[in-house]
Amino acid sequence: MSSRPSPVPAAAASTTAPTPPAFNKRLADAIDRDGSVLCVGLDPRLDRLEEPIADFCRRIVDATIDAVVAYKPNSAFFEQLGATGWQALETVVRHIGGARIVILDAKRGDIGPTAAAYARAAFEAIGADALTVNPYLGGDSVAPFLADATHGAFVLCHTSNPGATDFQTLPVDGRPLYHRVAARVADDWNAADNAGLVVGATYPAALEAVRALAPRLPILVPGVGAQGGDVDAALAAGLDGGGRGLIVNSSREILYADDPRSAARRLRDALNAARERHR
Amino acid sequence: MSSRPSPVPAAAASTTAPTPPAFNKRLADAIDRDGSVLCVGLDPRLDRLEEPIADFCRRIVDATIDAVVAYKPNSAFFEQLGATGWQALETVVRHIGGARIVILDAKRGDIGPTAAAYARAAFEAIGADALTVNPYLGGDSVAPFLADATHGAFVLCHTSNPGATDFQTLPVDGRPLYHRVAARVADDWNAADNAGLVVGATYPAALEAVRALAPRLPILVPGVGAQGGDVDAALAAGLDGGGRGLIVNSSREILYADDPRSAARRLRDALNAARERHR
Repeated sequence: MSSRPSPVPAAAASTTAPTPPAFNKRLADAIDRDGSVLCVGLDPRLDRLEEPIADFCRRIVDATIDAVVAYKPNSAFFEQLGATGWQALETVVRHIGGARIVILDAKRGDIGPTAAAYARAAFEAIGADALTVNPYLGGDSVAPFLADATHGAFVLCHTSNPGATDFQTLPVDGRPLYHRVAARVADDWNAADNAGLVVGATYPAALEAVRALAPRLPILVPGVGAQGGDVDAALAAGLDGGGRGLIVNSSREILYADDPRSAARRLRDALNAARERHR
Repeated sequence: MSSRPSPVPAAAASTTAPTPPAFNKRLADAIDRDGSVLCVGLDPRLDRLEEPIADFCRRIVDATIDAVVAYKPNSAFFEQLGATGWQALETVVRHIGGARIVILDAKRGDIGPTAAAYARAAFEAIGADALTVNPYLGGDSVAPFLADATHGAFVLCHTSNPGATDFQTLPVDGRPLYHRVAARVADDWNAADNAGLVVGATYPAALEAVRALAPRLPILVPGVGAQGGDVDAALAAGLDGGGRGLIVNSSREILYADDPRSAARRLRDALNAARERHR
């Protein structure tokens, strides 16, 4: 290294920087760095709050950041406040400030140019690292969310709610539709290593089937706690063999706990113990 | 009627007002009143605009309102501007001011409490009359959008894009998945007369099949013009027998025409001529 001031401006020098890692690699690295597979869902329910929505979320982030690998703000609970809520969402993501992965739970899905606008909304306007997307409109509707490898998309596969069995489990050539979705994402849409899947903890058998079809994909698992999903069963079914490969979301049990910090740490520890048992 | 001032306060008196009509009835009445089945999609593409997004949309509304039955603002193109875009969306819907039906193209879909928050965002914060929703998460994810009969939801059935054939047409017990969706909406989710379907004009055979499965549902038809769908084929396949039952969306061909007013009137007239031919 020369001690002379470099004649190359910083901006130009940065063009020779190594390619930043793809989203799935970033997530795996973050799980190791943060020692957690816990994702806290930011679902600020107005009827439970006594303070502005952004203040509430920032307080939750400050209390839980040591215990989590990711936050999952739920777009709907901000959108219901209109422009004010959107501003609060931007404020909360800025407060997290890149210290943890941010997955915008938006479940978007639309034709190409519209999906590209949704991708700009999530990744640029809001500053999320990834978002949840709906597969019903097919490959060209998901492609814009996967165009930049450093940002990711979690594709809905088998959701945690009762209605998951209305269409997702219908038999297509003898196998449930959601198997088709899992295989398509694993075999085709994940070319840039930035696609994942959403599978609810309330259906551990589905989680096991999806893990078999998509051995390397990260799986976002909602539905533990209030929705009834069991932590141990979910991790036994969904881990990737190396004790990683999934992140488990909890919202209500942490946000509205008497002590959100303790609640988050307890769940992180329970998840890590289950990771050890099923490694 | 007595000339004495009524002792009953206005608010109490209004509780005896007749029940307002369900959304599908409102839409059918509006088609008759406005003499049009044309819906103009408000997709403000930033790279084509030389003015603020709200100003552009208000100018389009003022130029086209005599020719349309509905406007369909596309949420993505507002969201990409963050809180500013959201404010613009509220401004545009306020500008329309109830003079025409407003269908928010948002393609939302999420589990119950979240869907309820999205419904509040669309119907209360933004002031839309209806929105587009995605069926993949099943009945409980769509129910909150149909809870108030005066507001409606158009459920994605067979979309206009190439990816429509990735999952929507997969065979379930020998019939394509989108037939299942159409039948489910017609036979179950439309109990309050406020559900519709979305079927792309680019697949007229799908439109014909859906009309047979759902004789009474309004169908929102995107995809004419730039996406290649033919007006006459779409109306031949999708009308309900009374020359109504569908609304046809056009965005780019009107928004970016040299003269949006003339473009909207021409398309309205072409649609009305086709309605006469296929009545």
